[in-house]
Amino acid sequence: MKHDRILLAHGSGGLMSQRLIDEIFKKAFNNDIMEPMLDGAILDLPAGKLAMSTDSFVITPLFFPGGDIGKLSICGTVNDLLACGAQPLYLSTAFIIEEGLPISDLRSIVASMAETARQVGVKLVTGDTKVVEKGSADGVFINTTGIGIIPAGIDYLPQRINSGDKVIVTGNIGDHGLAILAQREGLSFSTPVLSDCAPLYQLKDMIDKYQDAIRCMRDPTRGGLATVLNEIAVQAGVGIRVKEADIPVSVAVQGACDMLGMDPLYMANEGKMVIFVAAEAAEDFLNDLHKMSQTENAALIGRVSPEPAGMVLVETELGAERILGVLEGEHIPRIC
Amino acid sequence: MKHDRILLAHGSGGLMSQRLIDEIFKKAFNNDIMEPMLDGAILDLPAGKLAMSTDSFVITPLFFPGGDIGKLSICGTVNDLLACGAQPLYLSTAFIIEEGLPISDLRSIVASMAETARQVGVKLVTGDTKVVEKGSADGVFINTTGIGIIPAGIDYLPQRINSGDKVIVTGNIGDHGLAILAQREGLSFSTPVLSDCAPLYQLKDMIDKYQDAIRCMRDPTRGGLATVLNEIAVQAGVGIRVKEADIPVSVAVQGACDMLGMDPLYMANEGKMVIFVAAEAAEDFLNDLHKMSQTENAALIGRVSPEPAGMVLVETELGAERILGVLEGEHIPRIC
Repeated sequence: MKHDRILLAHGSGGLMSQRLIDEIFKKAFNNDIMEPMLDGAILDLPAGKLAMSTDSFVITPLFFPGGDIGKLSICGTVNDLLACGAQPLYLSTAFIIEEGLPISDLRSIVASMAETARQVGVKLVTGDTKVVEKGSADGVFINTTGIGIIPAGIDYLPQRINSGDKVIVTGNIGDHGLAILAQREGLSFSTPVLSDCAPLYQLKDMIDKYQDAIRCMRDPTRGGLATVLNEIAVQAGVGIRVKEADIPVSVAVQGACDMLGMDPLYMANEGKMVIFVAAEAAEDFLNDLHKMSQTENAALIGRVSPEPAGMVLVETELGAERILGVLEGEHIPRIC
Repeated sequence: MKHDRILLAHGSGGLMSQRLIDEIFKKAFNNDIMEPMLDGAILDLPAGKLAMSTDSFVITPLFFPGGDIGKLSICGTVNDLLACGAQPLYLSTAFIIEEGLPISDLRSIVASMAETARQVGVKLVTGDTKVVEKGSADGVFINTTGIGIIPAGIDYLPQRINSGDKVIVTGNIGDHGLAILAQREGLSFSTPVLSDCAPLYQLKDMIDKYQDAIRCMRDPTRGGLATVLNEIAVQAGVGIRVKEADIPVSVAVQGACDMLGMDPLYMANEGKMVIFVAAEAAEDFLNDLHKMSQTENAALIGRVSPEPAGMVLVETELGAERILGVLEGEHIPRIC
């Protein structure tokens, strides 16, 4: 590249846009579907149900302990597709870049996207690049939209959740939120906290194996575990009871949260899934999760009851029960 | 809504995000696929080829003569799908909103998206909303990603273009670019120029009728007609010869361009298509375009020749021939 920073002309649609695409995006995302460089990608898919999911990423800072906006932009959409029971296949990606972004930063972000996509086995098949004037955006915003195939018989709607089902979370919660907050505020802890940012592709095998013993899945991102449990309680029309002592939180995150007066139950996660599983399958399911590297800290944290419908109750470590509300107001802005 | 402007908390993922989604997005985009409000949309599609296309829209100003960012965000992606030969079906939409945006503006934009989608017959099935601090974006940026089905036998790749094929443009060029420029600069003309922003859904019937007599289509947005012709000449490995006198430009746009020293061939369009058609079908094709409201000013502007491969030549009104280059540098930033 002739320049070391992004110029407005890189978004012109003309010669410099073409060079940016050729030099940065095509080289990194290189695949046969993107290659013809049309206005869209042409995909050959078998008949059946598809999942489609979209997310824009506006996280600040762009690079953080455990990841960057590029890795996050793949993880977020891949995990949403998995939550729909889909095998993620194809992603589109659209960049809104602030004039002046160092091209070396863009290269790192794009390399990180390509590497994460490779790990999952998804292809980045079509894209878009816009450039806005300095001060009209903040570094770079990335949208990814994904599609995946839902295997026959899979239908992970909250309405399938029954009283007696178990609630599993696939690992420690709060790491992403705390890692971002700590970096932003310049806090450092004796044990550094890394974002859990990860594409949960190992769950593909669990969908294959457990099929409809899995009732419903959702990834607890913005708003954290508490907000996701509340959403599902309302959508499924059931009560959810969790035990505080069973919710896995790392010592570092718990300590930092205590110090800062934050609650890990409301902290964002970017590599975790909350899974509702039929009671009879729960033990095997958990054992299988423990065998996989991405979910070795999975824990059974609660169960579904008919009452109180639409609400989440937490049994505290002292045995009392309290209502776990949905996140009100703002927690940590631009966490993803 | 309790507030009249967007707050950071509307992007929290918690209660206020939920209210924003319920009050603004769900009401406007209301459909059975979006209704379950999962992490993604579940779609039932027949087997066959799909097209997938993505675009982020960063246009300024948000409201302009002939449209707004909402309408544009549907037109852009719908037209890209049509250019792939696809019947547009489903769109995702992701908003990045600057804190402080008047909620009444968001409502207008969303209403305009819903109305345009209804007109085309596409459904907005899944979405995402992020809010960034005042000064970290500019009003609102919208991403739409669409998928559509490509009928069997349709394969509109530039490689299908042959020497002798005709080049058609579906109407007057330059209107969008000039309308935005004029509004931004506070220029007014005796005949007001409106953006041509339109979803070219009437072309669906032309794809059905003409099948592979259509070789390739592309919408001349950023970079204008000149840039699209150059892209195709390179991708197809052919020469393209157009006649300046045959390229339809309205009197108002031509006059304004002359005054401003701009060239309409490089001005953005948001409701036009460049179509390469087999010579023997071109006359009927053009007649059919003239019968439809969206393409009544369509014109045959040129033809494909083996030489000079990868280049576009314009025959000027005086009979001379000049090379029509691709857009270099920046033309008009944030035009879409």
